[in-house]
Amino acid sequence: MLTLKPAWLGYQLTTSDCRAIDWFERCCMKTQTEYLTFETRRQREYHDITDDVAAVAGRSAIKEGMVLVSAMHITAGVWVNDHEEGLIADIDVWLESLAPYRDDYRHHQTGETNGDAHLKSLLVGHQVIVPITAGRLDLGPWQRVYYAEFDGRRKKRVIIKAMGE
Amino acid sequence: MLTLKPAWLGYQLTTSDCRAIDWFERCCMKTQTEYLTFETRRQREYHDITDDVAAVAGRSAIKEGMVLVSAMHITAGVWVNDHEEGLIADIDVWLESLAPYRDDYRHHQTGETNGDAHLKSLLVGHQVIVPITAGRLDLGPWQRVYYAEFDGRRKKRVIIKAMGE
Amino acid sequence: MLTLKPAWLGYQLTTSDCRAIDWFERCCMKTQTEYLTFETRRQREYHDITDDVAAVAGRSAIKEGMVLVSAMHITAGVWVNDHEEGLIADIDVWLESLAPYRDDYRHHQTGETNGDAHLKSLLVGHQVIVPITAGRLDLGPWQRVYYAEFDGRRKKRVIIKAMGE
Repeated sequence: MLTLKPAWLGYQLTTSDCRAIDWFERCCMKTQTEYLTFETRRQREYHDITDDVAAVAGRSAIKEGMVLVSAMHITAGVWVNDHEEGLIADIDVWLESLAPYRDDYRHHQTGETNGDAHLKSLLVGHQVIVPITAGRLDLGPWQRVYYAEFDGRRKKRVIIKAMGE
Repeated sequence: MLTLKPAWLGYQLTTSDCRAIDWFERCCMKTQTEYLTFETRRQREYHDITDDVAAVAGRSAIKEGMVLVSAMHITAGVWVNDHEEGLIADIDVWLESLAPYRDDYRHHQTGETNGDAHLKSLLVGHQVIVPITAGRLDLGPWQRVYYAEFDGRRKKRVIIKAMGE
Repeated sequence: MLTLKPAWLGYQLTTSDCRAIDWFERCCMKTQTEYLTFETRRQREYHDITDDVAAVAGRSAIKEGMVLVSAMHITAGVWVNDHEEGLIADIDVWLESLAPYRDDYRHHQTGETNGDAHLKSLLVGHQVIVPITAGRLDLGPWQRVYYAEFDGRRKKRVIIKAMGE
């Protein structure tokens, strides 16, 4: 937005003007929107996307705000938890126990076979908000953002949208 | 807020002034808050409220931002998933299996009979955030926003609050 | 930010200037970030933190916006539900039934013993957004914000971040 200023001002900026503009600009809300694309090889996969989220937050130049990380599909999840392979394996087994594959889901009468993936998505949720403080993701020491694919081998997207000042 | 400007400016606007004001206005954060009311006939019902959410986002005139969709009751849920009747039936059965009605919940010692509805609400969550990009809900192809009533036949509300620029 | 104005203006403010500044200021996005610290005596504890969230919202002076309440640890949860001791006891039993302690979690091969706490956190979620309307938390009549500790007796933090205008 800075590039718009010379056009409409039409007069020489004084120091006071510049400071005023600077002040209003800090005041100005910023957003940044990007998308991650996944096409996993396996049906269920779990990916640590924290660095991608941090990169979007960095490009947004937002000092104070929030980043929404949200799966754009109904058979995927997004969560914040530990990056530890044993735990990821536990989560996978646990999700299958609480939201198992079953032949007899009514959803499968449509020809789909991914009823369990919908339920897994509902169970863990499909989005998180990561706060941005002092220009950085304000996560606790072990918090990592994960994308959870429950019905892979097809193209999926995640929106990462930062909003703040 | 546009209507406030003539009052405090007190002088004839030049083209430059208008462009400056226009620029600051784009910069200005907007919010829009509305409420949906439900009074379902059955105890458990599932309603696709995506069009309501889109209407609030439209009325907000927000180009980039987010809409919070949040149940204001502790026995209801809000999720984003598929609009497919078979799946909705599966979800209903699945929620009853994981958070069943039971006579012996301690909560029922208060005279209530809706302990399971509280647990179902915790399981699926009571709110989602829908991103707004380029003035539209930025949802994936099959994503629909649902209100899930777990303890109906009484008046319930959902807040839809858009925030952005 | 109000204190910056005299410095850069460098001239006597007229009434029109003041109203203009006032207008832009209402337009200005505000944020407020605070942290709660917990060190529970028991392994699992549930704390109503609604008053803390309301206090942060109050200090933010935000009229319209949202407050993010987010656990900064991967073995804790944050939810919105009823403040009723019987229900809290039901939730505790229910979470243990769906995400029980088990010796044989793979995560425990790292020396940890809190695998169930990670799963409980995934089940209920680690964050909520509370809307702010007309300067107050816009919660339904029975909605209370809870911090759920699933692996206590160590120092934990919750971030409360308000954002709005």
